[in-house]
Amino acid sequence: MRATVMYGAGDVRVENVPDPRIQNPTDAIVRVVLACVCGSDLWPYASMPASDQGRRMGHEFLGIVEETGSEVSGVKAGDLVVAPFLWADNTCVFCEEGLHTACPHGGQWGPNGVDGGQGEAVRVPQAQGTLVKLPVAEDSALLPSLLSLSDVLCTGHHSAVKAGVSPRTTVTVIGDGAVGLSAVLAAKRLGAERIILMGRHKDRTDLGRDFGATDIVPERGEEGIARVRELTGGLGTHAVLECVGALSAFEMGLGVVRPGGAISRVGVPQYGEIPFGFTDFAKNVTLTGGVAPARAYMEELLPDILEGKIEPGRVFDRTVDLNDTPDAYRAMADRDALKVLIEP
Amino acid sequence: MRATVMYGAGDVRVENVPDPRIQNPTDAIVRVVLACVCGSDLWPYASMPASDQGRRMGHEFLGIVEETGSEVSGVKAGDLVVAPFLWADNTCVFCEEGLHTACPHGGQWGPNGVDGGQGEAVRVPQAQGTLVKLPVAEDSALLPSLLSLSDVLCTGHHSAVKAGVSPRTTVTVIGDGAVGLSAVLAAKRLGAERIILMGRHKDRTDLGRDFGATDIVPERGEEGIARVRELTGGLGTHAVLECVGALSAFEMGLGVVRPGGAISRVGVPQYGEIPFGFTDFAKNVTLTGGVAPARAYMEELLPDILEGKIEPGRVFDRTVDLNDTPDAYRAMADRDALKVLIEP
Repeated sequence: MRATVMYGAGDVRVENVPDPRIQNPTDAIVRVVLACVCGSDLWPYASMPASDQGRRMGHEFLGIVEETGSEVSGVKAGDLVVAPFLWADNTCVFCEEGLHTACPHGGQWGPNGVDGGQGEAVRVPQAQGTLVKLPVAEDSALLPSLLSLSDVLCTGHHSAVKAGVSPRTTVTVIGDGAVGLSAVLAAKRLGAERIILMGRHKDRTDLGRDFGATDIVPERGEEGIARVRELTGGLGTHAVLECVGALSAFEMGLGVVRPGGAISRVGVPQYGEIPFGFTDFAKNVTLTGGVAPARAYMEELLPDILEGKIEPGRVFDRTVDLNDTPDAYRAMADRDALKVLIEP
Repeated sequence: MRATVMYGAGDVRVENVPDPRIQNPTDAIVRVVLACVCGSDLWPYASMPASDQGRRMGHEFLGIVEETGSEVSGVKAGDLVVAPFLWADNTCVFCEEGLHTACPHGGQWGPNGVDGGQGEAVRVPQAQGTLVKLPVAEDSALLPSLLSLSDVLCTGHHSAVKAGVSPRTTVTVIGDGAVGLSAVLAAKRLGAERIILMGRHKDRTDLGRDFGATDIVPERGEEGIARVRELTGGLGTHAVLECVGALSAFEMGLGVVRPGGAISRVGVPQYGEIPFGFTDFAKNVTLTGGVAPARAYMEELLPDILEGKIEPGRVFDRTVDLNDTPDAYRAMADRDALKVLIEP
């Protein structure tokens, strides 16, 4: 089959790889119907050292179950299913706590002989725990929104949940990428009435407004901090959803968080240390977030998509054929596209 | 009157200062019955540059109201009252959120013409919001426990509340000082069944056991981390209550916190930056805590003391006359005493 492999910064190829086959009785084989490129794929696309080995790419996909191992129940051949961006057994003590990212029997798509999602098919380990059945047809117009359950919608939701977003909280979202816009949507869904979106790409912040943002702040750094404070009577917001991962974004978060508030980070941190000393201690600032346990939220968010209450799939603004996946990376890296769908 | 003044590291004096008098209609004058030295007083005792001005000391006291300003109701002359370690109006938007530490009309004991608690009397600003009436006599045996409401009990409680301690959480408390021991007591009170206390002073950890600690870990650093992990099946604990303030203590916290868990810091941080990068992000570690809004918790904790359910006053192991306050500092700095009461 064909699948996407990255060989280094800027070097993404679609190649022939071995067809997936059941290796363990807990596996399933899924034919991919829809996949996409993630903002986090752009970090290695910018910096991965060149390698002969290559890295299988993609951790967001939905598709049709073709075959299941002998120990898999709950999903069967012919089912349309979506996978979270990490696989997990959904039964261990961590999964029961809603922290599927810490599942000792789980793992990542791509490395260690596991397929990536940007390909024609995927062997899904721990299929029973990992896959969520979608009660729509393969040609449903809801597919892009349902694919967002793999990552960006659940990641935005995670940031809002961990920050304690509710109808009583004001919110700042830092970053107008697909995760930032999903965080806006998630905060709105949780009842927040005041949502300030920090972003400077008008087409994206316009979508942010549609998703529920009440104010747009294009300024960055000290200027951006001053603007958010001005909008909030000098106080800042209770919740800050940090959806970038750069140290400068986190530092903006420290500047705009209200005393007693929380910064919830879901942008993959590109730093090892942060300033977090006496001033933040005196302010009772909480720092939370992390890699989203998407699987924990999928059943909760699915009905809102099926009922049309939310349209997270609007973050996708382009679709390419699997063969053109390298163009998808380029378009997203150039900020020419927000988030690109891949149709194998 | 006599009051305690610090002129530099190791230089604490009891001197004559002007008698307090009502300056604002919201003031009250309180004659101090019982005060104490705080672990946080030991930071300037170790490092304050010598100064001619001196700094009025003490932020924990209870006493008898002698006089109230014209706008003070709720407390009156003759009442026995306790004060939290920061004064506040108890009516602003932050106080209503339970974050009295951010009260815009509040402040610290000691600086800016406000008396410290280690003296014969105190002018209490925002007296109506600040003072909590105690329904016991001036000679009650409960006074030391009631004095702990000023700071250490509420600070320990704050660390446990912010970390989400409940009957379902395992807990590590870092530090066997008065705040650490209070955190053990608070965690036990909130229902935690497994409480690991990291501390190496046997008389203190013995009291920790009485307060509810189930395990004592005297080791520090990597050894201490390994021991806590061993005690928790390799996982660490859901809650880590960091009651020291040193970077090394925080780093132990990172080592013993369970994936998805929280480190709640109430030790005043003696650092400006912390390691908090991808590893902690992948573990979904929350970092919370801060300066405790003691006033927010006093009414909630008071009944348990009055009913004898908790005895937080057991952290006091020595009593001195006001004139001997310098000895109290010395004894605590030398770890010869845990926490010292002052009787003016």
